[in-house]
Amino acid sequence: MADLRSDTVTRPSIAMRRAMAEAIVGDDVFGDDPTVNALEARVAAMFGHEAALFAPSGTMANQIALQLVVPPGGELLAGGDAHVLVYEMGAAAVVGGISSRTWGSVGADLDPAQIGAMVRKPGGYTVATRAIAVEQTHNLGGGGVVPLPTLQALRDIADQHEIALHCDGARIWHAHVADGVPLDTYGRLFDTLSVCLSKGLGAPVGSLVIGSADRIAQARIIRKRLGGGMRQVGILAAAADYALTHNITRLAEDHERAQRVAVALAKYGVVDPTQVRTNLILVDLSGTRLDAASFVARAAAQDVHIAAMLPHLARIVTHLDVDDNALDRAITVLTGILAEEA
Amino acid sequence: MADLRSDTVTRPSIAMRRAMAEAIVGDDVFGDDPTVNALEARVAAMFGHEAALFAPSGTMANQIALQLVVPPGGELLAGGDAHVLVYEMGAAAVVGGISSRTWGSVGADLDPAQIGAMVRKPGGYTVATRAIAVEQTHNLGGGGVVPLPTLQALRDIADQHEIALHCDGARIWHAHVADGVPLDTYGRLFDTLSVCLSKGLGAPVGSLVIGSADRIAQARIIRKRLGGGMRQVGILAAAADYALTHNITRLAEDHERAQRVAVALAKYGVVDPTQVRTNLILVDLSGTRLDAASFVARAAAQDVHIAAMLPHLARIVTHLDVDDNALDRAITVLTGILAEEA
Amino acid sequence: MADLRSDTVTRPSIAMRRAMAEAIVGDDVFGDDPTVNALEARVAAMFGHEAALFAPSGTMANQIALQLVVPPGGELLAGGDAHVLVYEMGAAAVVGGISSRTWGSVGADLDPAQIGAMVRKPGGYTVATRAIAVEQTHNLGGGGVVPLPTLQALRDIADQHEIALHCDGARIWHAHVADGVPLDTYGRLFDTLSVCLSKGLGAPVGSLVIGSADRIAQARIIRKRLGGGMRQVGILAAAADYALTHNITRLAEDHERAQRVAVALAKYGVVDPTQVRTNLILVDLSGTRLDAASFVARAAAQDVHIAAMLPHLARIVTHLDVDDNALDRAITVLTGILAEEA
Amino acid sequence: MADLRSDTVTRPSIAMRRAMAEAIVGDDVFGDDPTVNALEARVAAMFGHEAALFAPSGTMANQIALQLVVPPGGELLAGGDAHVLVYEMGAAAVVGGISSRTWGSVGADLDPAQIGAMVRKPGGYTVATRAIAVEQTHNLGGGGVVPLPTLQALRDIADQHEIALHCDGARIWHAHVADGVPLDTYGRLFDTLSVCLSKGLGAPVGSLVIGSADRIAQARIIRKRLGGGMRQVGILAAAADYALTHNITRLAEDHERAQRVAVALAKYGVVDPTQVRTNLILVDLSGTRLDAASFVARAAAQDVHIAAMLPHLARIVTHLDVDDNALDRAITVLTGILAEEA
Repeated sequence: MADLRSDTVTRPSIAMRRAMAEAIVGDDVFGDDPTVNALEARVAAMFGHEAALFAPSGTMANQIALQLVVPPGGELLAGGDAHVLVYEMGAAAVVGGISSRTWGSVGADLDPAQIGAMVRKPGGYTVATRAIAVEQTHNLGGGGVVPLPTLQALRDIADQHEIALHCDGARIWHAHVADGVPLDTYGRLFDTLSVCLSKGLGAPVGSLVIGSADRIAQARIIRKRLGGGMRQVGILAAAADYALTHNITRLAEDHERAQRVAVALAKYGVVDPTQVRTNLILVDLSGTRLDAASFVARAAAQDVHIAAMLPHLARIVTHLDVDDNALDRAITVLTGILAEEA
Repeated sequence: MADLRSDTVTRPSIAMRRAMAEAIVGDDVFGDDPTVNALEARVAAMFGHEAALFAPSGTMANQIALQLVVPPGGELLAGGDAHVLVYEMGAAAVVGGISSRTWGSVGADLDPAQIGAMVRKPGGYTVATRAIAVEQTHNLGGGGVVPLPTLQALRDIADQHEIALHCDGARIWHAHVADGVPLDTYGRLFDTLSVCLSKGLGAPVGSLVIGSADRIAQARIIRKRLGGGMRQVGILAAAADYALTHNITRLAEDHERAQRVAVALAKYGVVDPTQVRTNLILVDLSGTRLDAASFVARAAAQDVHIAAMLPHLARIVTHLDVDDNALDRAITVLTGILAEEA
Repeated sequence: MADLRSDTVTRPSIAMRRAMAEAIVGDDVFGDDPTVNALEARVAAMFGHEAALFAPSGTMANQIALQLVVPPGGELLAGGDAHVLVYEMGAAAVVGGISSRTWGSVGADLDPAQIGAMVRKPGGYTVATRAIAVEQTHNLGGGGVVPLPTLQALRDIADQHEIALHCDGARIWHAHVADGVPLDTYGRLFDTLSVCLSKGLGAPVGSLVIGSADRIAQARIIRKRLGGGMRQVGILAAAADYALTHNITRLAEDHERAQRVAVALAKYGVVDPTQVRTNLILVDLSGTRLDAASFVARAAAQDVHIAAMLPHLARIVTHLDVDDNALDRAITVLTGILAEEA
Repeated sequence: MADLRSDTVTRPSIAMRRAMAEAIVGDDVFGDDPTVNALEARVAAMFGHEAALFAPSGTMANQIALQLVVPPGGELLAGGDAHVLVYEMGAAAVVGGISSRTWGSVGADLDPAQIGAMVRKPGGYTVATRAIAVEQTHNLGGGGVVPLPTLQALRDIADQHEIALHCDGARIWHAHVADGVPLDTYGRLFDTLSVCLSKGLGAPVGSLVIGSADRIAQARIIRKRLGGGMRQVGILAAAADYALTHNITRLAEDHERAQRVAVALAKYGVVDPTQVRTNLILVDLSGTRLDAASFVARAAAQDVHIAAMLPHLARIVTHLDVDDNALDRAITVLTGILAEEA
C-alpha cells in the first residue's frame, strides 16, 4: 500500500511515540506545560521572532494570524488559490469579518508589482487593505517555492503601505530545504507566520503561529475563542519537537522522490518535472482520456492512493512514510494507467 | 458652480418635491405604506421579477441581496474593482460572513470563461462558490456596459453550477439607455438585482433589491436587522416613483454630455472617448504632471468639482443637475488645467 | 378609525410636509447636506454632547452605538426585555459579535446593585463586560420611566468599572416630559444615546446616535457598512427638525390621553393606571377570557387598532394622530369587548 | 504540592500514556483514524445518540453544538453564569452570530417555568428563541447537579416550543456518579451535548460533541472552520478511551474528598457542605477578612494551589491527581489561613 494523498497521512514513528510517552506536561491553558512552552520558544527563535503559539491545526494557526493583522471590515489580499481562502471553510470572513480580493497569478509565481497595485489605502468609504498573505510552499501551486527576492519585494510593498505580510508556511520547511534559505531569513520578512508540524515533518498534530510578543498574547485570546486552548498538550508538542530535530533535513529525500515520480510521469505529458520543486506533484490529465476522479479510483484499486484536486488535476505527495519500494510500486501502477489512457 | 463629483449629488426638482409633499404614506415596517408598496410592485414588474424591497441605500440593497444568495461561509465571485467589495466597508464579510475571490479583468470587460473556471463546487473542505456578482454599469470601470451576450453567458455558467447571479444595478438604467436592452431582459438574467433611484435618476434617497417573493420576504428580515426598516418612507418612494416616470429616457442627454467632455479632454491624452459609454468619465493622469488630488483641488478652486478615485485617476460624472452651461464652464476649467500640466 | 398600535404610525402634518418640500439639501454621504448637519448639531447640543449622526431607524442608531462601545467578543448587559436585544433581529451578535447577559428585572424598574454585580472584569479567559444599555422610556415596560437617581447610580457603576453606558432613548422625550428632567441632564449621563424622531414626535423617518466627536466619526463608517448612508436626506431631516420644534411639549397630551384609557380599562382589572406613566398602555388579559390576538382582532373589526405583544399582553399607544374623538371611540370599543369577556 | 485549581490539571498516568503510545492512528481529517472513529462511536452510544465528533476543547465542542442548533440572528437562552457565555470569549456571538438572554437563577438551581416564560416565538421582527443551554454539573454553580425532573421539564418546554436543548456536559460524568442517572438517560433528553475527557476523567486533551448523524456531519464542517480538524489525533483519542474505561466510577472518591474539604472549611462559615455535590467546592470569603486573591496567594505560598473565581469567591477542585495525603495537607494549610483571618 502506498498512501500519496498528502503528507498529512504520516504516522508517528516509534521514537516519536516514545518522546510523547515521556513528555513532561502541564495545563497549557494556564501556561503550565513546559514541553509546549519550550516548543513555542524554539520555533519563535528558529524564525527570528519573539513568540509563538501552538494550535491544533494549520487552519487555526492561519486564521489566528489573519485576525491579528486584519480587523473586521479590513481587507486581505491573497492568491485566488490560497489555502487560507479556499480550504479553510470561509473562516476569515465568518470569524474575522475579513474581506478579501485575490490576484490571478497562479501558485508561487507571484508578481509583486501587480500585488502592490491592488493595495487600497484607507480613506473615504474604501475598504482598506490591511495585509497580504503568501503561501510557502504553495499547495495548489504544486509545491512551488516563492523566490526570496519576490518575498523581499512584497516586504517592501507592505512597508511602503504600512500593512502586514503573513506567510502560510505550512510547508515552509520544504522551501528552506529546496532553496537553502535559512528559516529565520524567511521569518524576518513576515509579520506573522503559520508553520505546520503534521505535514512533511511527520508529527501527528500541530501548527504554530509566530509573531511579536504582543501579537502572540492577543493570539492566545483568539485561540481560546476558537476553541483551540488545550490542556496537557505537551504530549503533542513533544512529537512536534522531535519532528523539528529529526525531520527537516530529510525532506530532501522526499523532494528527490517527487522528482523521480515527475520524470516517470513526464513521458505521458502530464507532469513537467521542472515545475516540481518540492514534495508535491500536480498531474494535469487534461490531455488524456482520464479525469482526476477516475485516475484516483483506478490507482486506489491497486492500493496506490493519490488525491483529486480539480476535475482534471490530481496530486501526488511524497513524505516520510513513503520509501523507495512503495514509490517504485506507485510509479509502476500510475504509469501503467497512463500508458493505457494517455 | 458645477458639481460633477457624482450623480448622487442631484437635488430633487420642484415637481419631485411636490410628489413627496403629496404622497400618501403609512407605516412601512407594518407594510402599510401604499406609496412604497406601489413602488416595490412597479420596480419588480419593470425587471420581470415577483417582488422588490425599498432600502435606504445601494449598499444596503446590495448587501441584502448578497446575504440572500450566499450563506455564511459561502463564496462570492466578483471583480476586484466591484463596488460590493471595495466601497461597502467590508459588509459582505462582517455582516454576512461571505468569503470572496475576485477576477482580474477590469470594469465591464468580463471574460465568462475565466469566471466560470473560478467556480468551486462544494465538497470536502472546499469553500463552495454560491454566487457571482456583476455591476451594470460599472462604476470603477468608467460607466462601462457589460454586453448582453456576456451576461447571458454568465447566466449559463450560474445555471450549470447551480449558483446565483447578482446584479449591482445601481446604474442599470444607463446600460438600458446606452444599449437599448429592455430592463426586464436584464432582470430575468439575474436571481437578485439592486437598483438605485438616487444616482442618475435624481431621487434624493433610495434603492431597491429585486428577486423572488420568497427571497424578498427574507430580505425584509435582513433589512430590519441592518436597520433599514423605515416608517412613513412613502415620502421617499414618491420621489423615486417620479424619477422612474420622468428621468430614465433623459439619461441619453447625460451620456451625450459625457461624450462631449471626453472628446474635449482627449486632446490631452487623458481620456479615450470610445471608452466612455454612459455618464462617467475616468481621467487617467498618469501621463501628465498632475495627480488626481491636485487636479481635483485646482478645479475646485475654480468651482468645478470632480472626484479623485485613485492616485492618478479622477472621475467626472454628468447628471440631471448639470446643464450645457455648467458643462461648458467645466470643460473650460478642466482643459485649462490640463493645458498647463499635460 | 383609530390606530393605536404604535406611535410610529403618525403621518407628517401639512406643515411638516411643507418643511420637507422647502428643505435645502445636499449629498449627506459627502457631508454636504446643510439640513442634516444642522439637525445633527441641534440634537447633539440638546443632549449635551459633541456630535450626532442621522440614521434611517432606531434599530440602526442603537446598533451603531453598541458597536461603538462594545468590541467583537465583548459583553453588553441589558434587560431581558430590551428592544436592542429582542426586537432588532439579533443585530448586536450578527453584525457586532456582541455577547449579552440580561437582568431579570422588568421594564424601567431597574436595580443598580443587581446590575453592578453582573459586571465582569477582563482577565483570564472571561468575557469582559464593556457596556450597560438602558431604555428610556421602556417599550416592553409599558412606557415606564427610569428615575434619574437610578440612572445616576448606573453612571457611577459604569465609571467604577470603566465601562460605557448606552441609552436606547427612542422615547426619551416622553421621559423628559413626564419627569421634567432636562434632556441634557439625561444626555450627560450616557456615553452614547439613540433618539428617535419618528415615534412620538411624528417625523416620518429618522433616529440619531449621539456621542463624542470621535465616536461619531467612527459611527459614520459603521453606518456606511450597515447601508445607512443616504444622499439628500435633508428632506427627512427637515421633518425631524420640525418635530423637535413643535412636538415635544405636546407629548403631555398623549400622556393624559393614555391615563384616560388606563382609568377606563382599569375597571376590568386589565390595567393599573399607576403603572401608565407616558403614552404606552399595556393591557394584561390573563385574568379574562381573551387572549391578545382575539382582543386585537375584535377591536380591529370595529376599526380600532391596537397591538398584541405577548400571548396575554396587548398594547395601546397614544400619539399625535389620535385626538379626543378617536380616543373616545377607542375606549368605547375596547371597554365594550372587555365588558363581554372580563 | 497540591494543585486544586481545576480538574483540568491532571496529568496522564503511565497506563494512559501506554495507551497513547500504542494507538493505531490515521488521518482523521480524511476520516481515517480508527481510534478516533471508535471513540466517537463509543461516546455516541453511551449517550444514546447516533454520532459524536472529537474536538480539541470543551469550548469548541460547545460552540459547534450551539451553531448546530441556533442560526445567525437566532437566540440562545442560558444562565447568566453559563460557561458557554462567560468563559468562551464571546464565541457564540462572534462566530455564530448568536444572540443571548440569560436567566437570573444561579448554578444548577433552575426554574423551568421561568425559563419557559422567556422563550419567544418567531414572528414579526422578534428575535426567535432557538435553543436553551444547561450545564451539568454547573461550574460557577459549584459543581451543582441539575435534578433529572428539572431536565425533563426543560425537555418538555423545548418540545412545546419546537426549540433545541443543549447540555454543556463537561462534567456530566460527575452528575451521573452523584445522582446515579444513566448517561444515556441524560443523553436522550438533549438535542446536542458536549462532554469533556480532560477534566475529571484525566485525559490530556479532548471533548466530544454529540447529536444526530445529520448534525454531526454538519459539525465536521464547523469544526474545520474553527480549526479543530486534526490529523493523527488517535493519540489523544486513545487516552480519552482509556479515561472512559477506567476513570468514571472513581469520581466518587473525588466527591468524597470534596465533601471532606467542605466539612473542614465549614467551621469557618465559608462553605456549606450540603451545597457540595460533586468535586467543586466554592469558598465564599465575604464574611472573612480575606478576598479570593489573597487567600489564593497565601495558600500558594505554602504550595497549595486553588483558584480565585470572583473577588470574594475561591474554588477548590478535587481530582485523580489529588490523593488523601495531598488533600490532608491542603486542608491543614487552608484551615490554617482561615483560622487566622475568619
